[in-house]
Formats: sequence, structure tokens, C-alpha cells
Amino acid sequence: MENFEFHNPTKILFGKGQVSNLKKEIPAYGKRILLLYGGGSIKKIGLYDKVISELKEIGTHIIELGGVEPNPRLTTVNQGISLIRENQLDFILAVGGGSVIDCAKAIAAGVPYDGDVWDIVTGKAKASSNSVPIGTVITIAGTGSEMNGNSVITNWETNTKAFFNSNHVLPRFSILDPEITFSVPLDQTIYGTVDIMAHIFEQYFHASSNAPLQEKIGEAILRTVIETAPKLVNDLNNYEYREVMLLNGTLALNGLTGMGVSPDWATHLIEHAVSAVHDIPHGGGIAIIAPHWMEHVAATRPEKVAQLGVRVFDLDRTGKTDAQLAAEAIQSLRKFWTSIGAPTKLSDYGIDDKEIELMTERSMLADQIGNYVPLTKEDVRKILRNSL
Amino acid sequence: MENFEFHNPTKILFGKGQVSNLKKEIPAYGKRILLLYGGGSIKKIGLYDKVISELKEIGTHIIELGGVEPNPRLTTVNQGISLIRENQLDFILAVGGGSVIDCAKAIAAGVPYDGDVWDIVTGKAKASSNSVPIGTVITIAGTGSEMNGNSVITNWETNTKAFFNSNHVLPRFSILDPEITFSVPLDQTIYGTVDIMAHIFEQYFHASSNAPLQEKIGEAILRTVIETAPKLVNDLNNYEYREVMLLNGTLALNGLTGMGVSPDWATHLIEHAVSAVHDIPHGGGIAIIAPHWMEHVAATRPEKVAQLGVRVFDLDRTGKTDAQLAAEAIQSLRKFWTSIGAPTKLSDYGIDDKEIELMTERSMLADQIGNYVPLTKEDVRKILRNSL
Repeated sequence: MENFEFHNPTKILFGKGQVSNLKKEIPAYGKRILLLYGGGSIKKIGLYDKVISELKEIGTHIIELGGVEPNPRLTTVNQGISLIRENQLDFILAVGGGSVIDCAKAIAAGVPYDGDVWDIVTGKAKASSNSVPIGTVITIAGTGSEMNGNSVITNWETNTKAFFNSNHVLPRFSILDPEITFSVPLDQTIYGTVDIMAHIFEQYFHASSNAPLQEKIGEAILRTVIETAPKLVNDLNNYEYREVMLLNGTLALNGLTGMGVSPDWATHLIEHAVSAVHDIPHGGGIAIIAPHWMEHVAATRPEKVAQLGVRVFDLDRTGKTDAQLAAEAIQSLRKFWTSIGAPTKLSDYGIDDKEIELMTERSMLADQIGNYVPLTKEDVRKILRNSL
Repeated sequence: MENFEFHNPTKILFGKGQVSNLKKEIPAYGKRILLLYGGGSIKKIGLYDKVISELKEIGTHIIELGGVEPNPRLTTVNQGISLIRENQLDFILAVGGGSVIDCAKAIAAGVPYDGDVWDIVTGKAKASSNSVPIGTVITIAGTGSEMNGNSVITNWETNTKAFFNSNHVLPRFSILDPEITFSVPLDQTIYGTVDIMAHIFEQYFHASSNAPLQEKIGEAILRTVIETAPKLVNDLNNYEYREVMLLNGTLALNGLTGMGVSPDWATHLIEHAVSAVHDIPHGGGIAIIAPHWMEHVAATRPEKVAQLGVRVFDLDRTGKTDAQLAAEAIQSLRKFWTSIGAPTKLSDYGIDDKEIELMTERSMLADQIGNYVPLTKEDVRKILRNSL
């Protein structure tokens, strides 16, 4: 392991009816609130009304910003910053999925910053301890954003997706009610499943040594997802499956399996480049790219892919080389994702080879990306071509 | 799962040389410090000098309280409370194992309380948000006290061990340097190993439903302990083994595997009664009692013990009943603990049947104890007799 600091003070309120704790949690942070949400599904399922009634009960002043996009945009972040400054708001309540929460984090960090918030998103400046406090009501399993300091934002002027991480924008509390996730449609449920697994992969394929516990916890999460997701996609209103997936999503990216290791994140970087050029769902992009990334990795370092196959997909090691096991592991992963209905080719989204160069370009935040097996531009181009 | 709240804001600083961060972490809490430690081993290994030099560098005023007992005593807690009140101290730095940290927590909670601190330890009163802030430098893997709000205190006047839990006494930060644990002798290393496993058992054998992820994470910790401990007991100065065991201990009892489930804790309650009557090491007592507790449980509910056998001890399920698997699982556990040198009988500590009644009496904090299989007084008497 490498030396590490772990500090995750987000308070999790998990279970049925936890929204009714909003009136207990919010008063510590102030009376003037930015209510942030997405495309309006929270209105359809009655969550919006519940939240508003909670907020009114404690006499808050509410300014709303709805319509946050699935890949949240810098323009929306700037709108939120202006609303908070103009109305002197104290607190952001983000009600939605990862996009809404990620957007809240960028707004939170941007408010006390004098320059362009894009500086913070791209790492040129740091989020400060004066960032506006955030609370969340999460509506989908997968993102992990409800218990981490990560935020991914898209700048459509430059077709660039960038991300930052800061403990200063960690949600102060997050409400996780499995019943709220009943309304997540099949496709989004599939994307969330893929995203959870990919979050584990990015940390599992780390560039450090001696992290058996972190790896075994990652495997525990993967096995739980693999057990639960096939049942869930056939029974979307099942509380028991929804609660397990919701907890999977939170624990997959709250720092737990990343303790003391250098994660990879290449698959996410490539997917971010794809969905910054074509506005496709993040989990869909990941499902397509991850197996090709894993094949590239297995060509030079098959041992960890083989370990994944044995420990997560129950492959029999007898008489097989790591390379053979790795190939079987990737086949098992593909089979599993296909079985729950995940997409397999970028062409499913109408993406063809005309934009390979632009997507490759956008992936390369440095000369090489990734850690477990660092990727050159040529490697990324190849992975993207194989994904078409 | 049951509805739950999870909020663990302890900052973990893990790795070599992290003691040098004391000077960064402490100033937020004040300049006047109670330095709490145990029997003086921290002086032998040079840790005391390092800590003092850190504290002097930031100009703190230090009052020392050394000699905290392995089963920390109410009298010592009261001494600490007096020292803080008389000297108007702001912060407690606990340098030691679980006993020192548990003692710090009781002191922290007792300072702002008007009555007898024993009221808080026994649950008659609650720790308040005015509890004195605590930081820790942990010297042994096993307790988990460095990242939870638990505290176990012994009242020798009444031969009673009691415990409380409060988020108000959670350490603000804990320093976990595996090198510091090199000096833990073989017997304490064994007791720590047993304690970590028992902490998982107490949560694994919960009385709730649908917690597959929590159980799998528990199994991940158990498997990691079973892989690592046999190597560690033969190579006490091995950094890689020590770091893995240290992380195992912290994650085994920081709330992670207990999310949304009602834990059991009967084994701990019985052991606390034993070591409140005879001052034996906690981990030693647990190693003796836990297998007998598990046998009692397997007689009526073998299925989870069988699951433990299959998933943690790699038992082959083919053609076996749960009862058979459970018996094999308990045998595997015994074999493992014996292999690393854990004690197996209370008579090893010179305890005989004369005190069975007193120990039984002291175990029964209620008419029944435990959750997975609630134990009557008669059950506890039987488990203790079998443990002789």
C-alpha cells in the first residue's frame, strides 16, 4: 500500500422515508436554498412535492434550478453560481442522479472563486473550504457521487469533459431511499449497474502493491452486483434488489476500495471523451469500452484480469495460463453485461470512425493515461476502433 | 436491511511516518493537551519521544496520564476527567491500543457531564456534543476503536464491565502507522487477530434480512485475516503483513459491515463478564468463547455458520447438510486459531467452575442477550461451562 489519508464525513441516511429527515438536516446550514434537479422526473414521481413540503415546513427560501443535463454543462454550473450569488443562498440541495450532484459540486466550488469555475474543474485552481455546503437526495444507484468529492462537467464550446475532486464539496448528508429508485427506467438501471462495476475495476486495476483487502472488498461488491442486477432488471420495483444496488453504488466509489492504491481511470477518461463528442449515456459508453480496455491490458498484464475471472466469475484455474483465464474473464464480463441488456458497440449510438481522432485527442489529458497499464495515444485509438 | 444512518467523520492518516502529521492535525483543537497512554511500551519503542517532540514543535501545554490498564478502569477515567477540568485542557491525544482509546472516550464524555461518568458508560446518560475532542495514535491492530465511537470500561468495585457508543467521542483523527505495530508482541498480535475476526462475526450473525453486500465485505475481511495472520505471527516485523492487519482491524469495526443490520455481540458480552471477574486479555477470552457460542447457535440456526464455512473456509458443500457444514466450519475456525497460537480453554488462565455463576450473572445485561440467537442465562452458563 501507499500512505493515504481517508476522510469521508458525508452522513448517509439510508432507507424508506428518509426524505422526511430533510427538515432535521438542513437547518444547520441556513435558510436560503438552491434546489437543483434534472429533467423533471422528480416531479412525475412525487419527490419534488415531498421535498418542497419538507423545505416549507422549516421556513426556507427556495430558488430553483431545474433541467440539469445528463452530462451536466458548464453553462448550467455558471447559471447556478449566479443564482447563489445574486440571491445570497446558503446551501445547495441536489435532488437527482450523478449529473445533478456533480453539477452541485461545481457550483459549490465556483461560488467563492473569483475566476472562471472551469479553472477548478480542470485542476488549474482548487476548491476552497468556503465552498457552499451541499446535501443530496439521490435518485439512482451507480454514480457514487452522493458520498464522494468527484464532479464531472462538460464544456460544449470546446467538446471537453473534465473532472475535479475535492473534500470541500463532499455532500454534508445524502438521503438514499431505495423506493425513490423504483422509477429509474430499465436502460438507466443497466447503465448504473455497469458504472458501479467499472468504478470497482478502475480501482481494482491499481498500480500499487499489497492491497489484498481492498481487492477483496472490490470483489465483494462485484459479486453482489452480479447476483442482484439480473434479478433487478426483471423486477424494477423490488425493494430488496433496489436497496442492495443502491448500497453497492455508494460503497463502490466512496474511497473504500481505493485506500492506499493508485487507481487507473483510463476507461472513464476514454468514455468521457466519447460522451463529450457524442452526448451518449456514461454507463452505455463504459459498457462498450471497458472490455476492449481489459483486452488491451490483458495482452501485457493478464494476471489481475485472471484473478478477477477466478474470484468474481468463478472460473476454474486448473491447467490454464493467466492469459487464457483473462480471455475467459473478459468473455464472462461481456456475457454478463449483454445478459442484462448493456450496449456493445459505439455504432449502436451512431458513432462511426469519422470521429475516432477527435475522441482520441480528447482522451489524452497527458502523454499517457491510466496507471495499471499506461496508454499511449496509439493504444487509445486502437481501443476506440475496436469499440466501434 | 433496516433503515440506517452512517456517519463516520474520523480522518485516517495511514502509513509510515504519519506521526509527523500531529503538528498539522492538533492545532485546530487547542493548545492544552491531555496525553494518555498505557504501560509505557510507547517509551521503549521511541514513540513517546516522537509524539512529545511533535507536540512541543507546535507549542502545546501537555499534561500526561500514563498507566492506562489493559482493561481500562473507571478510576483511571475519573483521574483523566479531573486532570482535564483542573488544567482546563482542550484535547485528548490517546497513544496506545484499544484500552487507551476507550479510556480517552469515557474521559471525553465525562468532562462536560455533571454526574458520575459511569452513568454514561452504562447508558443511563448520553455523551454530549460538548465531549472533549480526541485524536489517536494506534499501536496495535485489532480494536477498531481508532475509527468508532465505542468504549468499554471496567468498574473493579463491582466487577462490572460496561460499554457505550456515541458519535460525539469518535476520534477526530487517527494515525495508523504499521511500523509502530512492529513492537506488538506475539501474544497481543494473536489476540488482535482473534478480536478482528470476532468483530466481523458479531455483525455477520445479524438478526436482519437482505444484507448480502455487508456479509460479503465481512467475508473479505475474514479471508484477508486468515491469509495474513499465519505469515505475520512468524515474521512480526514484516511491514506488508502489519499494514494489512492494521487496515483489517479498522474496517472490521468502523460501521461498514454493520450497515442496516442488528448485530449480535453476545460473545463480547460474555467475554466482558469473564474479564471483569478475571483480568484476562480480551482477545484471549474471545478465542475461547466464540467457538462454543457458534456451536450453540449452530444447534438451532446452522445456515449462516454453514455459509461462513463455505465462503471463508472454502468447505465443499456437496452432499452435506447445513448442520454438517456448520460443524466443519467451527472445526476450521478452531484449527485456524490454534494454528496461530490462540488459547482454547478458560482453565489456561486458571479460571475454574467456582466463578461460572458470577460470570453468568455479569453477562446478563438483560433477560436475554444476543440477537441472531438470543441467549438465556441457562444458555450462557452452558457456553461458559463448555469453555472451561
